[in-house]
Amino acid sequence: MIVCKFGGTSVASAEQIQKVANIVKSNPARKIVAVSAPGKRSGDDIKVTDLLINLAMAALKNEEIEEELQIVVNRFMAIADGLELDHTICDVIAEDLHERVKGDKSNEELFIDSIKAAGEDNNAKLIAAYFNSIGMPARYVSPKDGLVVNDLPERTYALPEAYANLAPLKSTKEIIVFPGFFGYTKAGILRTFDRGGSDITGSILAAAVEAELYENFTDVDCVFSANPKVVNDPVEIKEITYREMRELSYAGFSVFHDEALMPVYKIGVPVNIKNTNNPSAPGTRIVPRRSVTGRPVTGISADSGFSTLYVSKYLMNREVGFGRKLLQILEDENISYEHTPSGLDDISVIMRSNQITLENEERILSRVKNELNADDVQMRHGFSMIVIVGEGMRNNTGLAARAATAISKTGANIEMINQGSSEVSLVFGVLQEYENQILQALYGEFFAHARV
Amino acid sequence: MIVCKFGGTSVASAEQIQKVANIVKSNPARKIVAVSAPGKRSGDDIKVTDLLINLAMAALKNEEIEEELQIVVNRFMAIADGLELDHTICDVIAEDLHERVKGDKSNEELFIDSIKAAGEDNNAKLIAAYFNSIGMPARYVSPKDGLVVNDLPERTYALPEAYANLAPLKSTKEIIVFPGFFGYTKAGILRTFDRGGSDITGSILAAAVEAELYENFTDVDCVFSANPKVVNDPVEIKEITYREMRELSYAGFSVFHDEALMPVYKIGVPVNIKNTNNPSAPGTRIVPRRSVTGRPVTGISADSGFSTLYVSKYLMNREVGFGRKLLQILEDENISYEHTPSGLDDISVIMRSNQITLENEERILSRVKNELNADDVQMRHGFSMIVIVGEGMRNNTGLAARAATAISKTGANIEMINQGSSEVSLVFGVLQEYENQILQALYGEFFAHARV
Repeated sequence: MIVCKFGGTSVASAEQIQKVANIVKSNPARKIVAVSAPGKRSGDDIKVTDLLINLAMAALKNEEIEEELQIVVNRFMAIADGLELDHTICDVIAEDLHERVKGDKSNEELFIDSIKAAGEDNNAKLIAAYFNSIGMPARYVSPKDGLVVNDLPERTYALPEAYANLAPLKSTKEIIVFPGFFGYTKAGILRTFDRGGSDITGSILAAAVEAELYENFTDVDCVFSANPKVVNDPVEIKEITYREMRELSYAGFSVFHDEALMPVYKIGVPVNIKNTNNPSAPGTRIVPRRSVTGRPVTGISADSGFSTLYVSKYLMNREVGFGRKLLQILEDENISYEHTPSGLDDISVIMRSNQITLENEERILSRVKNELNADDVQMRHGFSMIVIVGEGMRNNTGLAARAATAISKTGANIEMINQGSSEVSLVFGVLQEYENQILQALYGEFFAHARV
Repeated sequence: MIVCKFGGTSVASAEQIQKVANIVKSNPARKIVAVSAPGKRSGDDIKVTDLLINLAMAALKNEEIEEELQIVVNRFMAIADGLELDHTICDVIAEDLHERVKGDKSNEELFIDSIKAAGEDNNAKLIAAYFNSIGMPARYVSPKDGLVVNDLPERTYALPEAYANLAPLKSTKEIIVFPGFFGYTKAGILRTFDRGGSDITGSILAAAVEAELYENFTDVDCVFSANPKVVNDPVEIKEITYREMRELSYAGFSVFHDEALMPVYKIGVPVNIKNTNNPSAPGTRIVPRRSVTGRPVTGISADSGFSTLYVSKYLMNREVGFGRKLLQILEDENISYEHTPSGLDDISVIMRSNQITLENEERILSRVKNELNADDVQMRHGFSMIVIVGEGMRNNTGLAARAATAISKTGANIEMINQGSSEVSLVFGVLQEYENQILQALYGEFFAHARV
């Protein structure tokens, strides 16, 4: 059995949904289909999800909502018309939206969640209706029937019983059309997943039914070895391990949200990133393990917006508990960190700058200075992290030398280097302004002859 | 005022103590002299401290101690004879040892401490007597008069009031001869410092009297830029900052115990490492800061005996508190660590292998696996750390590239790289068997033309 997920652009219009039907039909193993809400049909289009947020906001402000609501219905109606479906489905959708708008507004976040989820939920109903109309027996299944998520206030995730609840879908005769992006708490409250939410739903379904493959249909042919916005015509990645994919999850690799990999990663279901608009392209396969070919590096990613907390103290490395206490101070501010390179008497904590405010920066600096008796404490901003990833880097003598040499040729100074004993990734910290130049230099070093 | 410290080989014999007298006499600023116990006179000699340990052991076993005690007295007698002192001082020493042996044995560690300290204590009395005998007015001062240390069970360190207590020594007319290696708790219990103990005493005295200089006399001309046992004829270091010295404190730089630098570091007293046997050599100066000359690297040190705890977990870097909890587990085992290089989903904790036992390794692995739900946990042994240090490395583009290239030419794989934002050190983790080869290669890279 194959679980397929179709992203927003893949289900944005009647034409796109026809492509989806053809894809599903062409392989009888494709029995479970997770769908997003209709996305953009062109660059300046508005996603249904954003239309729904407008609706939710209007409702929360007790404004007239009929117009906002009708815009959403019209969008679905255009799709239904294009698919030659009668308007029954549109009535269902309009009624559903009216019901949701009347819902409990005591918790604004949950209210917005319930409105936003209408995009996926109704699109799944519509697509199931369409499949049936063209002779593909299909059934809409609601997340209410098993996709149990945790309660507030933690970010949403599927509870272990969700997998058991959804497992029986593996014996389905019809094609299951399942809305992405949300689940229900045990108390029946709708909660949406974070970004990449439909990817997560597909991944949960694939894990629950122990699918042979999880196909993730989007609008690109594959994952590239470097960000195509920075590197000209980068090499396509045919196969990549979960772990490589995860290490590359900085900018330029956002085609598949890393958190969404978790459920399939846990039980080893391979993933295939494919293009709805070019389904014959092999795409990129994400697998538990792979044989390493000649090229040691699989991909290079880069991201800006990092800050460094630098702490030095004489004889730091003799002090049992110093590092732990430092991290505790960050934890108290609910700050997660990326790396902690250290000398004998100093340690730098690298973290995302978006977690730092003027207030918590001051608190952190003062606590480190006073509670840890540090000799020197500084917070610096404006760093980028460049990550070179490849299973083939393990035991590859000289690779760090090549990377550092390529960077030094750009004239940039390496502010931080980090290579752990996993050896599938090598991280360089540099000043933000050098990021693109370094990414290009490293790509040139490791992929220059890749197409020869 | 200059505080001088003379190490074990500098006070091992009458001839050596005559050199000490000449050194002290040659500069009237040398007013405070901290001394070790007599060390080895030749390669197969036994240090007085080791003779005293034998004595302490015999006393603890209630064996006949007279012979062991007489060996110690004889050693001092030979020195006294060589210095043409009468035997009064030897009677004082013999009586002192008999007193100590009769001391409280209820805490064996403290009993051994009190016997061991007799080496420094009596040597200071003897040297003060000798100085007086040759017309250098001198006075033995006991650590009882001010060098207050903390109570058990923590390792010994000087309490803040020790500095205030010892400060009046700055107005001394006579030369003060002060035994190294030990102090007394407020309750009057003798406790010794760890390795390098006489260096610490000298450093405490230099800080207490705010000396212009702390001269540390030993048996080498200087600190070398690399371990002379591994690298042929390494460059001498003329000047080095505290911080560089500290970062180099791995093997091959043990000429000055790093903990001993702390008191002078805190108030910025410069240190001069000098050779008792060649006092005209300029030695190595350790200073708060220095102007960087042409060469970016000041020294390269290496040490073996490291282990790596490798932990991987999917989405680790999203989990606020993961690193802190991991370090807490090590702290619970009282294990200190050196570095924690990390990828996005894995972290390696590098620590000294001598802290790991079969029992705590098993406990650590099981706690990390169960409490942190790690996907993979492994402990690996047999690593060396190579540290390249230099204030001139800051903003030195291409230095990491040169280092990594030099290492890769040896054929060794780099298991770990760590460079924090202090940028005065760059650490490479390698398999132990490559350590010497890499040290030689790096020395060649950064110092090859140093003498040209």
